[in-house]
Amino acid sequence: MKKIILEKKFKLIDNYWTPAVVGELNGQYIKLAKFKGEMVWHSHENEDEFFQVIKGYIVIHLRDKSVTLNAGECFIVPRGVEHKPEAEHEAEVMIFEPKVTAHTGTTKSELTVDIEKQLWI
Amino acid sequence: MKKIILEKKFKLIDNYWTPAVVGELNGQYIKLAKFKGEMVWHSHENEDEFFQVIKGYIVIHLRDKSVTLNAGECFIVPRGVEHKPEAEHEAEVMIFEPKVTAHTGTTKSELTVDIEKQLWI
Repeated sequence: MKKIILEKKFKLIDNYWTPAVVGELNGQYIKLAKFKGEMVWHSHENEDEFFQVIKGYIVIHLRDKSVTLNAGECFIVPRGVEHKPEAEHEAEVMIFEPKVTAHTGTTKSELTVDIEKQLWI
Repeated sequence: MKKIILEKKFKLIDNYWTPAVVGELNGQYIKLAKFKGEMVWHSHENEDEFFQVIKGYIVIHLRDKSVTLNAGECFIVPRGVEHKPEAEHEAEVMIFEPKVTAHTGTTKSELTVDIEKQLWI
């Protein structure tokens, strides 16, 4: 039962697109990630995914539109919806998703990080 | 699938201690609330509760310690743990908890707001 200081946690993150688990509750993980560049297109069959931009801005591309999220803005990608996050400049993002969520869904990419490598709790 | 702009949503909230549901995912709600003054002591038997301070600062009193959370800081109150949030000045807070979570647990108070009155989605 310690507080999570987002600024301090983000300082520990060196690699882009590599979420770090900083909390766990009700079968869900709280993760922090730095985004820069483009992720791969992917979807999660059974998991909804919440993104909150803490610093900078990102774009979440969907097949029919692109949503720009600035700091203080959030977006939920529903299960099954293909998406590709992108960040022109480094951005800091908080993610809520079920513990069982695979990083890039059924899409395997060199950016894929297995959950064992995301565990920081 | 619309983005959630926290600043705009908080402007719509007039009452303290009255969470507004702004998102739903994986059986959980994303809620926003303004805190000012003292909540009642309560606990949630089966639900963990995540607090993130967006603006201002709050104190979460536990029976054995008190945790001050400034903007950009988060805390998870595990299920079954008695807690009493407090805010000396108005603070803006994001909460992430299961849909079934009762506002003040099994404690009924004049501050209790039933879930039907929290629904803004």
